[in-house]
Amino acid sequence: MSTKHQLLIYLKEGKDTWVSGEYLAHRMAISRTAIWKHIRNLKEDGYIIESSPKKGYLLRQSSDLLLVNEIQEGLTTIIFGKVDIAYFRETDSTNLRAKLLASDGAPEGTVVVAESQTRGRGRRGRSWFSPSGEGIYTSIILRPSISPNEAPKLTLMASVAVAETLLSMTSLKNINIKWPNDILINGRKIAGILTEISMEMDRIDYIVVGVGINVNTPYKSLPLDIQDIATSVLMETGKPFPRIALLRAYLEWLEIYYDTFKTRGFEPIMNRWKSLADIVGHRVSVDMIDRVRVGEVIDIDKDGFLILKEDAGSIERIISGDVTLVNN
Amino acid sequence: MSTKHQLLIYLKEGKDTWVSGEYLAHRMAISRTAIWKHIRNLKEDGYIIESSPKKGYLLRQSSDLLLVNEIQEGLTTIIFGKVDIAYFRETDSTNLRAKLLASDGAPEGTVVVAESQTRGRGRRGRSWFSPSGEGIYTSIILRPSISPNEAPKLTLMASVAVAETLLSMTSLKNINIKWPNDILINGRKIAGILTEISMEMDRIDYIVVGVGINVNTPYKSLPLDIQDIATSVLMETGKPFPRIALLRAYLEWLEIYYDTFKTRGFEPIMNRWKSLADIVGHRVSVDMIDRVRVGEVIDIDKDGFLILKEDAGSIERIISGDVTLVNN
Repeated sequence: MSTKHQLLIYLKEGKDTWVSGEYLAHRMAISRTAIWKHIRNLKEDGYIIESSPKKGYLLRQSSDLLLVNEIQEGLTTIIFGKVDIAYFRETDSTNLRAKLLASDGAPEGTVVVAESQTRGRGRRGRSWFSPSGEGIYTSIILRPSISPNEAPKLTLMASVAVAETLLSMTSLKNINIKWPNDILINGRKIAGILTEISMEMDRIDYIVVGVGINVNTPYKSLPLDIQDIATSVLMETGKPFPRIALLRAYLEWLEIYYDTFKTRGFEPIMNRWKSLADIVGHRVSVDMIDRVRVGEVIDIDKDGFLILKEDAGSIERIISGDVTLVNN
Repeated sequence: MSTKHQLLIYLKEGKDTWVSGEYLAHRMAISRTAIWKHIRNLKEDGYIIESSPKKGYLLRQSSDLLLVNEIQEGLTTIIFGKVDIAYFRETDSTNLRAKLLASDGAPEGTVVVAESQTRGRGRRGRSWFSPSGEGIYTSIILRPSISPNEAPKLTLMASVAVAETLLSMTSLKNINIKWPNDILINGRKIAGILTEISMEMDRIDYIVVGVGINVNTPYKSLPLDIQDIATSVLMETGKPFPRIALLRAYLEWLEIYYDTFKTRGFEPIMNRWKSLADIVGHRVSVDMIDRVRVGEVIDIDKDGFLILKEDAGSIERIISGDVTLVNN
């Protein structure tokens, strides 16, 4: 652990009381000037620390940044976020960073986190609104021993983990997973998932699962084109939520479901997914890259594919697409 | 064009005759000292240039390195190798370099070339022997608008391009493509292909097609474990072949077949592939990642999958695997 983070622990131990510089210098066996430098550094990291020549230092408020030490503090996972976290104040895209790390050999469980993205992406090269400090933008590297055909399961797994995170941490109830990769509240998108795969023909090298969650985004900061379709925890509950706690919970839920996937298979996850989704039985239009199909969703099958019964009667098995409810 | 390459052109125009430093300095409007520096630079690039204080300079022999300017000289492609070539005297793996470039946005047709690889790879993480100056190790970035299911076609396409290259440039005749990704001569591997894909569920981001060709590898330089299964142009024909000409031809053949694929589909390529392969009708064992199957190959289908009729009578459609001929 760095000296800075050791110092932070002593400040946190103080719990809203002053800790003297002399005490800190003694405990850490460094000079009071060194203490002062590290305090300045912590302030730059977003920690609100008061100083008094007589009383010493007081940690008034923890940082609101998604700092690696804060994410890892109390994180109950075994691998996810424990192996390594690459943190960026700003980056182009956490998925892109994760892909570059994975190509260079980064192990399963490596996490990329950014405060903001300049080229945040969704499916089909769409952009994902990623303002600084208001959302969670994170990507994780997985290296499962599965066939490339099974990869869609991991998108559904991640969407269940995001839903569980929101259900367990916030007061939000009306959560609906929209196949294949969006999390909605009252019909508006609160989170999205972008899964990218690197593989040989019959062998997955790695999968990057990227997630964007709108946490403390106020309505007024939404760009015009998504004002009617996006929402956030803040918008739905009326109050901001600490992003760090949500991110930690997401990593924990994701690891739980990934373990489930590896030990018990996809079925329990699919069952939970179905209880969180509301698509089977609905009449929809599915916009795919090369075609559009209209019909009734009769199932999401055991591999996570959407099974559509077209009006003409034929059955289509769809791996991915944009689903819109249509009237009968 | 750089001054160095402009100078090279003047030397090449000289065709085995001396070109005076004065003439060169005049033509290029730089000092004779500058000429001398560029000559030294060209020598470092492997060009054999004689100098004489009285007669000037004589290009005795072109470089044997796969230099970008040499590859591009006379290259008849429109895109492949024209967009950009990343050249390395040594790199870990041209496929890895190409993947990193592609993830960062490099366009279709970008080529990576290396004189040697420290982590040259084949399918399933196997190594590919990549000694300096003896082989061709190159990877190309493709961004086809096809479904991920169609990706295997590009491995077969590349194997046809490699076979055409060897057939058209060398005196080799007995070339046999081994499904899915090896080129054999008299049963020994002369070239291999490693195709890697980066994609979302329903959308290919990029495909990297990597090729390794053993050109001037002498038998004695082969590692013990591949002495019985590998061969090279040198070993088969008894004489070395200029790698640069082979590489250029490969890029040209590959572009021809890629154009064919985009304009006329896979069928003509599949037909050519079948004329270069000898697998249909044979009894084989196919070793896949999770299972082994034995039976008769009854076809390579329109998507490039191997169709195996198992002894028990069932038909299996196989995307990739290690094929071994077995006795009846």
